[in-house]
Amino acid sequence: MALFSQSEYESRIGVVKERMAQKRIDVLIVFDPANMNYLTGYDGWSFYVPQVVIVAQSRREPLWVGRGQDGNGARLTCWIGESSIKPYADEYVQSTTRHPMDYVSDVLRDEHLAGSRIGIEMDAYYCTAFSYHRLQERLPDAKFSDASLLVNWVRLVKSEQELTYIRQAATIVTHAMQTAMKAIRPGVRESDAAAEIFRAQIRGTHTVGGDYPAIVPLIPSNERTGAAHLTWTDRRYQTGDAVNIEIAGCVHRYHAPLSRSAVLGTPSPRLQELANVVVDGVNAALDVVKPGVTCGDVEATWQRSIRQHGYRKESRLGYAVGLNYPPDWGEHTASLRAGDPTVLEPRMVFHMIAGMWMDGYGLEVSEAFAVTPTGCEVLADIDRKLFVLDD
Amino acid sequence: MALFSQSEYESRIGVVKERMAQKRIDVLIVFDPANMNYLTGYDGWSFYVPQVVIVAQSRREPLWVGRGQDGNGARLTCWIGESSIKPYADEYVQSTTRHPMDYVSDVLRDEHLAGSRIGIEMDAYYCTAFSYHRLQERLPDAKFSDASLLVNWVRLVKSEQELTYIRQAATIVTHAMQTAMKAIRPGVRESDAAAEIFRAQIRGTHTVGGDYPAIVPLIPSNERTGAAHLTWTDRRYQTGDAVNIEIAGCVHRYHAPLSRSAVLGTPSPRLQELANVVVDGVNAALDVVKPGVTCGDVEATWQRSIRQHGYRKESRLGYAVGLNYPPDWGEHTASLRAGDPTVLEPRMVFHMIAGMWMDGYGLEVSEAFAVTPTGCEVLADIDRKLFVLDD
Repeated sequence: MALFSQSEYESRIGVVKERMAQKRIDVLIVFDPANMNYLTGYDGWSFYVPQVVIVAQSRREPLWVGRGQDGNGARLTCWIGESSIKPYADEYVQSTTRHPMDYVSDVLRDEHLAGSRIGIEMDAYYCTAFSYHRLQERLPDAKFSDASLLVNWVRLVKSEQELTYIRQAATIVTHAMQTAMKAIRPGVRESDAAAEIFRAQIRGTHTVGGDYPAIVPLIPSNERTGAAHLTWTDRRYQTGDAVNIEIAGCVHRYHAPLSRSAVLGTPSPRLQELANVVVDGVNAALDVVKPGVTCGDVEATWQRSIRQHGYRKESRLGYAVGLNYPPDWGEHTASLRAGDPTVLEPRMVFHMIAGMWMDGYGLEVSEAFAVTPTGCEVLADIDRKLFVLDD
Repeated sequence: MALFSQSEYESRIGVVKERMAQKRIDVLIVFDPANMNYLTGYDGWSFYVPQVVIVAQSRREPLWVGRGQDGNGARLTCWIGESSIKPYADEYVQSTTRHPMDYVSDVLRDEHLAGSRIGIEMDAYYCTAFSYHRLQERLPDAKFSDASLLVNWVRLVKSEQELTYIRQAATIVTHAMQTAMKAIRPGVRESDAAAEIFRAQIRGTHTVGGDYPAIVPLIPSNERTGAAHLTWTDRRYQTGDAVNIEIAGCVHRYHAPLSRSAVLGTPSPRLQELANVVVDGVNAALDVVKPGVTCGDVEATWQRSIRQHGYRKESRLGYAVGLNYPPDWGEHTASLRAGDPTVLEPRMVFHMIAGMWMDGYGLEVSEAFAVTPTGCEVLADIDRKLFVLDD
């Protein structure tokens, strides 16, 4: 059950090879698990050991290099043939003498690529300083250059099949957010609410189960709502609590994130005012989304809207989103922020997150959206407001 | 609500500074989120942006450097004072011109540490090749050396408070495994079973809620049981299926992992035989655990036991475990494998995982255990056998 057609994978490889040629790269070593998946289909929770995909101009198929016990996982999930799957022995794992990059170097040598111009995703998760150091040491004839984000930029515009998975993920996150708004009640532990949200994320719908999102539910409450990335505690919610909820649905590693804030009881005037300002700002920003507009333009519209009420937001308003693995669902390419020159095109997908983290309080309203030929398709279906939860 | 006493944090810092002195390191830059937490208490899902903890011989408190919007998270979770918390502006995030390591370099310069002998966790997750490259560029007077795993080795022997959290995590994983054995039934989607397991992991018990484990449930079935790290699909279980289940309980980031295999119906003779051999081998290996024995000895006992029946296992039998973040709950220090010279001491904790990934089938039986003054405390409480699930 291939998730994408053979021709879609070949087209991805083709575009990557073009970008490599523009940067004079013969061989690209891909460390980012999302990029590995994008090019080969490989999907497993094995990125905690070094593993790479190698794209060579001289080779039709990419090579997968990973741990021996994950070789069967590669055979089961990748479209590439047996001769392109290169598992390394367990003696390379967390050893004081051997390193998996020694094996990667050997593979490149066997493929007569050891003297190539090699591009490395130097700033990708899992491309450690030591891995790069070891490759340089073992491949003295290679000429290395930084190829961070080369594949990520190719991922920016989605295919119809990718959009299908993202829309399924949006259905899941809609349901998970509804679940959150039911679970968060006075007397309930934050951990118990998190458990119900997790369950909804993974159960998914009758037609599609959920994959694990790249980030766990972020549900800080009260003074913790002033911090962006706290998870949950064992505290029991009380009447008057404020809660931020940032979650995603995920299908075949494609994400649709969504954030809302809620109050148990009556919101404070300053929080309700902030909510009104933020919702107006998000509405205004979504309204200007269409092909031809830049990411910077979208953010500027948001800033103009909230500035009328005396607010400003220093951190960016959002980022490109799609296929990913922990620790992040963002793609690290285009951002909705001041001056970002990226021109919107149909089938780009962003997470617009209007997160306001103030001293001792905060609020989040976000939407994932796809750019359409004429505007913007908001993916989830949840009222855009501060939720007031009073039983 | 501090999770550990001030004196426990100070003792950790003291030991780390001793090890630094032995390696002639003045300043240690810590990238590993588990090590950051170990030294400061910092806990947030913010490791998807660059962040570090800096331990300097000349400074009593470590420094926390992270993203601006996570500064409040640091204030809420760390024991260190305001003057040790150094948040960077959002313009450093995923920028094409600025990098968070520029800010780290500025902090070191402000603290008069820019010319120090600096140790870097070069092979830690999130210490990217680019980050190291940038630090070298911005700190030309520093003398860099690799300090990978320096803090991890300090974590090997647990405190009583750490053991308390691990035991709580073990209670959670016991319950989560029982939940798995109920949820996995013919006609149920794998994703729905995963959802119930997740829920049990996060709900925890009446006395303690669950934190998110560093690895999601790994529950491959049938031919996928021959692959170590596959998660789940939307396939519905059928009578005759074999399933591996590898999960953990987690409390305050401390893990107790556990694996079992199950069959829906009657196990094949080859699988039942493998199970008997593996359980005997695990029993034999656990029996020899006590202070003074080496990790290599434990593994040798296992190999002798299974070799009697004509089996062998190439991959290691286990690893040290405890405090951690995605993507791994292992500590990357001592391994239960051939020749590992680490001598067992009381309060070390390991995950012994007898995973046999064969062609087209496989089986896992694992136990987390703590070394005691006289032997071994198995942490979870689940029958050590191949589970036969027949309704």
